Formats: sequence, C-alpha cells, structure tokens
Amino acid sequence: MAQLCGGGVTPAINFGRLCLKQWWKSGSICQNIYIRNVSSLVVGEPDGPSVKTSIPGPKSKQLLDELSAIQQTGSVQLFVDYDRSIGNYIADVDGNVLLDVYTQISSLPLGYNHPDLLKLLDNPFNVKAIVNRPALGVFPGSDWPKKVKNILLDVAPKGLSHVTTMMCGSCSNENAFKNIFIWYRKTQRGENIDFTEDERSSCMINQSPGSPPLSILSFKGAFHGRTLGALSTTHSKYIHKIDVPAFDWPIASFPEYKYPLEEHKSENEAEDRRCLAEVEDRITEYNKHGKNVAGVIVEPIQAEGGDNAASPEFFQQLQRICKKYGCAFFVDEVQTGGGPTGKMWCHEHFNLDSPPDIVSFSKKMQLGGYYMKEEFSPSQPYRVFNTWMGDPGKLLLLQGVLSVIKRDSLLSVVQKSGEKLLNGLYDLQKEFPALLFAARGRGTFLAISCTSTKLRDDLVNRLKQKGIQSGGCGEYSIRIRPALIFQTQHAEIFLDQFRQVLRETK
Amino acid sequence: MAQLCGGGVTPAINFGRLCLKQWWKSGSICQNIYIRNVSSLVVGEPDGPSVKTSIPGPKSKQLLDELSAIQQTGSVQLFVDYDRSIGNYIADVDGNVLLDVYTQISSLPLGYNHPDLLKLLDNPFNVKAIVNRPALGVFPGSDWPKKVKNILLDVAPKGLSHVTTMMCGSCSNENAFKNIFIWYRKTQRGENIDFTEDERSSCMINQSPGSPPLSILSFKGAFHGRTLGALSTTHSKYIHKIDVPAFDWPIASFPEYKYPLEEHKSENEAEDRRCLAEVEDRITEYNKHGKNVAGVIVEPIQAEGGDNAASPEFFQQLQRICKKYGCAFFVDEVQTGGGPTGKMWCHEHFNLDSPPDIVSFSKKMQLGGYYMKEEFSPSQPYRVFNTWMGDPGKLLLLQGVLSVIKRDSLLSVVQKSGEKLLNGLYDLQKEFPALLFAARGRGTFLAISCTSTKLRDDLVNRLKQKGIQSGGCGEYSIRIRPALIFQTQHAEIFLDQFRQVLRETK
Repeated sequence: MAQLCGGGVTPAINFGRLCLKQWWKSGSICQNIYIRNVSSLVVGEPDGPSVKTSIPGPKSKQLLDELSAIQQTGSVQLFVDYDRSIGNYIADVDGNVLLDVYTQISSLPLGYNHPDLLKLLDNPFNVKAIVNRPALGVFPGSDWPKKVKNILLDVAPKGLSHVTTMMCGSCSNENAFKNIFIWYRKTQRGENIDFTEDERSSCMINQSPGSPPLSILSFKGAFHGRTLGALSTTHSKYIHKIDVPAFDWPIASFPEYKYPLEEHKSENEAEDRRCLAEVEDRITEYNKHGKNVAGVIVEPIQAEGGDNAASPEFFQQLQRICKKYGCAFFVDEVQTGGGPTGKMWCHEHFNLDSPPDIVSFSKKMQLGGYYMKEEFSPSQPYRVFNTWMGDPGKLLLLQGVLSVIKRDSLLSVVQKSGEKLLNGLYDLQKEFPALLFAARGRGTFLAISCTSTKLRDDLVNRLKQKGIQSGGCGEYSIRIRPALIFQTQHAEIFLDQFRQVLRETK
Repeated sequence: MAQLCGGGVTPAINFGRLCLKQWWKSGSICQNIYIRNVSSLVVGEPDGPSVKTSIPGPKSKQLLDELSAIQQTGSVQLFVDYDRSIGNYIADVDGNVLLDVYTQISSLPLGYNHPDLLKLLDNPFNVKAIVNRPALGVFPGSDWPKKVKNILLDVAPKGLSHVTTMMCGSCSNENAFKNIFIWYRKTQRGENIDFTEDERSSCMINQSPGSPPLSILSFKGAFHGRTLGALSTTHSKYIHKIDVPAFDWPIASFPEYKYPLEEHKSENEAEDRRCLAEVEDRITEYNKHGKNVAGVIVEPIQAEGGDNAASPEFFQQLQRICKKYGCAFFVDEVQTGGGPTGKMWCHEHFNLDSPPDIVSFSKKMQLGGYYMKEEFSPSQPYRVFNTWMGDPGKLLLLQGVLSVIKRDSLLSVVQKSGEKLLNGLYDLQKEFPALLFAARGRGTFLAISCTSTKLRDDLVNRLKQKGIQSGGCGEYSIRIRPALIFQTQHAEIFLDQFRQVLRETK
C-alpha cells in the first residue's frame, strides 16, 4: 500500500492500485507523486498529497502577518490556493497539496472545484440568482416555490412538510427556537386566542408575560452555535462561552459510553438510563420554577463536543420524554446532515417512533434552515423573518450538489469508504493501544480518541506534515470529515499516513 | 411632468425630459411607456413603470398558493421575475414593472442586474470564489488579506482598523455584542489576568461568574435583529418579540421630535436632554443591580421603528455618556451604511468627538460584519468564530459594488436625488396637510408620516397600482429606500405618482 514520506518503498501494486513514488528533496521535506487513480470521482485530482515545506509554510506565515493587522487570526492554520485545490485535495499557498479529511469544518460536500458546480455559473440565469439577492420573505422569485419544493423538500426528513431557509447554522437554530416558543405558547394559550394587551406591551420591554421565561433543554458537550440564544445551548468548550451572558436554561448529561460498545453493553444501557432520568428531572424542575421547557435540542452525534454518540434507543426514549412533557423534539443536523453518515439525515439511523418536530441544517447543505411539522409554522407573518431569509444563490449550489449525490450514488460511496476507514481505525487502535481508543461513528463521520490532548494536537500537526489535513474535536479526539466524494483509495492514503505518524510517535 | 395612470395628459416636455405616454386598456388597468431617458446609469432601464394587472396579479397569487403549502407566506407581496428586472425597476411575474424605492428592504445597492455585477462572474477565478466556500477563520484563501484590506477597510469608518466578517445583520450585531462583553470583562479583570477556574466551569452551565449578567442598552423603537440576543435590543413591533424569551437589558427613550425641526428647536433640544438623562439613569440603575451595561447600541436613524432621526448633538452626548460610564459605543449601520444617506456611513453626519467603538453593517454591503477599534479584538482565538465567518463570494460582489459607487460618483447621485425627493416631499406635505407630515431623512434615506396607519397601508398599496414599490416603517410612515443608482428622473416619477395617489385619496 502507498506510503508517503516514510521510507524507501519502491513502486508497488497494492489492492489493484499502482502507486508510484518519487522523492523530491527540499531540505528535509519530501514530495510524493502518485499515478492518477482512474476511478476518482473528480477528474483532475492528484493521486496523493505532496508536501514541499513545513506547514504553515513561509508564504502562509507572511499572509498571516498581513491579516493579523486587521483581524484576530489565532485560529488560522494556513492560507489556501483555492484556484489549485481540487476534489479531496486542498492546495496551500506554499505549493503543498493535502488530502483533506476535514473539508472546511465539514462544510464541503463535493470537495474543491467540482466541475458540476463550476458549470452552474456558465448559465446566465444562475448568475442572476447570485447578483439579484431578494428579500425572500417579501419578494421571492418566480422559481422559488418550485425550487424549495424540488430541491429542499425532495430531501426533507420523512414527515416534515415545512421548511424555513436561513443563512447559517446558528441563525437556523435560533429561529427554530423561536418557532418552538411560538408553538409552545400557542398550545398553552389555545389555538385561536389572541395576545393580551399585557403581553403586547410587556414584550416590548423584554418582560413577562410577553417575553416569557421559557427554556430549551440541551446537553453537556453540545454545540448548537454561538449567537446568544444558540450559545446558551452550547456546552463544548469554555472559550466559546466565557464572559458572554447566557439564558438560565436546563442542561442534562449526554451519554458517555465505554468502548468498544459490544464489550460494555449493560454499562452503556445504564448510562442511557442515567442521562434520560436527568432529562426528566431537569424538565420537571424547570417547569416547576416557571421556566417551562418548550423544547429539547440534541445532535445525533455530538460533533464539536468530541464526536460523542448515543444509541438509537437513547434517541427513541428522548423523543418519548419530549412527547410526555409537551416539549418539541429538535434534532440539530447542522454537521451530521447532508450525507456524511451514509444517510441523508443521521437521525434516520435511529428508527424513531415518529419524525422529529424540527430538524435544522447548514454546512454541507450550503445554506442554513430547518424542516418542521406544519403545526410549528407560525399563524402570523413576520414572527420568524429577516431581510434575506436564506439565499437563492446557495440553493442553486445545493441543487448542483444533490444532483451529483444522486448521479454518483455518493451515499453508497460514503458507506463503502466509511466502512474501510472505520475498520482501518479499529486496526490502528489495536496496533497502538497506548495512543488510540474508541474508534467510532457512522459513514465517514468518524472519530478516534487519543490518550491525551497533547498527543491529539501533536498527531493532527504531524498528519499535516504527511499531507493529511484533519481536525480535532472535544478534548482529545481526532475527527474525520471528508467530502462525500472521498473514496476507498483516499481512505487508504489516510490510513497509511496515520499509521506512519503513529509509528513515529515516541 | 410625467404622470402615469392618472388622467388624459398628452406627451409633454417637462424639466427638459420628454415623456411619452400611451394607454393600453386592459380592464381598468393601464400601461405607460416613457421614452428612454438617455442619462440613466443602467443601460436597458425602461423609462417608467408599467402596470398591467392588479398587484398581486393572478400569477403571483397562484405561486403564493404553491408556496403557502410549505412555508409561512403572510409577508409575501408579489413574485418577482428577476430575469427581467433591471436597474431601478422590478418586474413581477404578471408582467408589471414597478419603480422600486424599497429595493428588497433596502439591501440592493445597484438595483437589479447591474451589468458590472453580472460581468464579475465571467471570470473563472471569481466563479471559484462562489463554489469553494472556505471556513475563513481557519483556511482563508490566498487573496483574503488583500481583499479585506482593499475592499472592506478601504471604506471603513475613520479610526476603525479591525473588521470581522459575518453573514447577516443579526449575526453581526450578536457577535459584536460578544466582542463588547469580552472587552468589558477584560477591562474589569485587567489586561493579562487569566480566567479563574470558577469562571471556566460556571460558564459551561450558563452561570455567573463565567456567564456574567452583563447588558447592552438599547432604545425604544430600535431594531437590531431577530436572533435572541439581538431581539433583546429590538423594540419596534410587538409581533417581532412576543412569546420569545429575552434578556433583562436596559431600554431608554429615543428622541421623538416635533416637525418641522426648525420650528421646534427648543422643544427638540429638551427632548434630547430627556432621553440622554434616561440613558444615564438606566446605566446607573443596571450597574447598581450588577447587570453592568457593557455597551450601548444605537441606529443613526431608527429605520424599522419609523425612520426616527436624532440630532448630531444627541449622538455626540451619547458617546460622551458611554465614555463616562465605560460602555462601548456601538453604531448599528446595517440599514444606513453603504451610501444611502449620501455618505458611506450615516454617523459621518454627526461630527463625533472620536470614532464609535464598533460599527456594524450588512444589507447594501452584501455581507454582514462589523468594524471595531483594535482594543475590541479578543486576545484569544475561537471566542468570536463560526464555520464560515462571512463569505468571499459576497465580498466579491461588494468589490463590484464599491467600484461602481466610485466610478459613477453614486454618493453625489444620492445627494442630488435625495435633495429633489425631500423637497418634493416637503411640497406634498404642504399640499396635503391632512394626509402627510414630518418629511425627513438624509440622502435618499427618507420617510414621511401619514396621519394614520390605515392611510399609510392604503397609500403603499395604491402606489403599487401606480407602478411604485415602496415600503412602510414604524406605525404610520412610508419609507423610501431606493438603490444608489436612483436619479432625479426617477425621483420625478415617484413624486408624480405619489401626488396622483394623494389626489385620489378621499
């Protein structure tokens, strides 16, 4: 199997794939060239990564200096040559080409410069969709109803007939909260009861009863965004929250499983029960104190919080608890939605009794928004509203993305690559038990835990030097978030390089 | 002067402009054709509106039925044929062409299908900026530092050296609040003092001291967005706020002037003093109760709240009060920014002692964001952050917009058209004192009050039937928000049609 920057391996045929390797000495840095893999889904992809400088390289460092004069840049890793990036490969300004298993924090469904997306803008009608941005809530274009139906609703979670478009994940969750509060108050007040004068006037000064002290229950380790409402349901890292005022909303424990799952079945079932009991306790407690829990928001896999999974049974029970207490069951699929788990929506893996009430999306879906049951749509206009209400230019891109997903059967590609990746991670954690544990996930939405934060950060950095762009999540996990065009040959390269890095770990 | 749909006026030369009129009877509806005005800034613009059906017409109504099955559509006015809209004219799906003085809730700087913007996407490099959307906070493109500098900072308010890009107005304000809270706590804590363990752990469960009960002061009638933090500073209409939880943050009165201003000088000065005293009272009160006021957010002209203006002296004093109490002075230019007041930023009209601390933008600027003083930039990364952090595709459009603003001297166009419009409104309120009063504004950012809400709604509707797309704001005002390419000949058409509608008012 192909190895990069690793030893004196000569060209070899492995798994039916020809890997040619050349060394380009440039200081202590090497470059590798693979012969094109004919089955790549994106024409023009290189056959492997090539690293020419340390990363960030000198040009990235220079640009960082420039940008630091005008922005906070502590999070910048490198500067990208988007012109030269292609498919699964991200090219930086120093001429390095990395296999990207992080894909812009999991937001690129088809990798870089996918020809089908570039082609979209050959069409002058589509160019106009970019230039003439409407206030969709007031002046939608002639094609908007058809597009919402044929694009967004065509891939809607089963049972959710309504959709609201937004711009990003945080906005989507915040506005979905508003839908939930409006729905909850309608059920309290009675369907056709009008607002009281007291409600109308008190809300104008942020006071009850017009601005009621309703709450949304969220989970420890959750990430639902960073605007002030969404941030009150985010509990992944203190640096996201410190110094920012928050709503006093209830928080319950999310299951922390022992791995491998099959060896800890009864402990993990007990963990589910513990967390679900906590959910009920919190709801009861907050309802009692007049901060009624209008909804429960949950990720199908906690992503930023460390790729924490919970069992289908946990989600089934959680939905039943929501029904019992009259709370909306809100599944945040901003990171899991759009295919990376091998299904369009991760909650499809859970065999729920009935559809969730609300499912939000963004990232791979190109624009933000949320699906919901009809009963969650407010009766009055202007309650969930803003100037743009999404962006037809992004829906256009999503249309292109979804047609490629269908044509190229990308959900099957994800399932196949995911299986290879996960099995590879199982092998690696067996091979390096002092370094890795708890390989987990669905599809290519995968993670593995490292035995310390320092080790995790070190591995992610050294992977980069081997031509792999990955990312961290939680305290000590590495997350794998490739594009949907990530194939088994890409998985092989990743696993090879990862093994090499682990071997070199002291 | 040209008149549409109004009487038996024959073609006439007025103000040096030839207006030809023809009637196309279609039931009781008429169509008008003007000969092209040679000096239009956008080639291909018609010379006047033409109305063929009642609005919304039958095709708009049919599309509304379709969309209502999947979205809340109570706010939709008509469906637009964006393909056929051009310059200052919006075409609907029923073949009506309206002069647009509302421009997608004031968000279109160059009207529809501006050739310079369409041309941008002939360039394959620019197409890639649309398709390869980066996570800008981590993997910015090679051209990002230069673009931020040459585009965004080139038009920055004087004295503000840093900029953060976002997606929309609400997100911009919410994230600016976070910058303010972080800055405020830094000044309380001391520059290089690290967070305590108590702060780190308490913020994870939304509790003090990590999530401190800091506040942002806002004004009655203000509109700063609709996500939960921003909504806590919005006080324009109850329907925006009712049933949604809010932070208990202080609210002060915004001046309500008597018009005409020159006749009520001393009363209005007293009104300034009353409101400013209230600001000081609120700050003192909230500080005393441990809900320290970290910042004050204010619109240079309250837009959604009814186009409420305040004097330069009011803003000068307000900034001094912020200095006195150590609050950030935050000017929200989401609607006023980008040129419509005849200056790039409306607060440039105020002759402030020093630059505001933060200025937010969106709408005409194509993407959201905020400028700030360097001291407001957080020392640590990931505190103000999200996946996309703006959108290079929108910055590209802004680049096109700003270069047309410069080339075509659009700020001068705005000043000239604004003068004509405002003088025309003064004439109309003299002519129809039982219907209109308080014509006001800066540049083409103008409004006039109607003597009742019912009359306002009626006038806006009938203006539409005369070929003018306008909008309401506050309880009883009509707001005028044309694009920056709105010229004096467009102002004439608007004023003619408005006069006609007023004449027909019983």
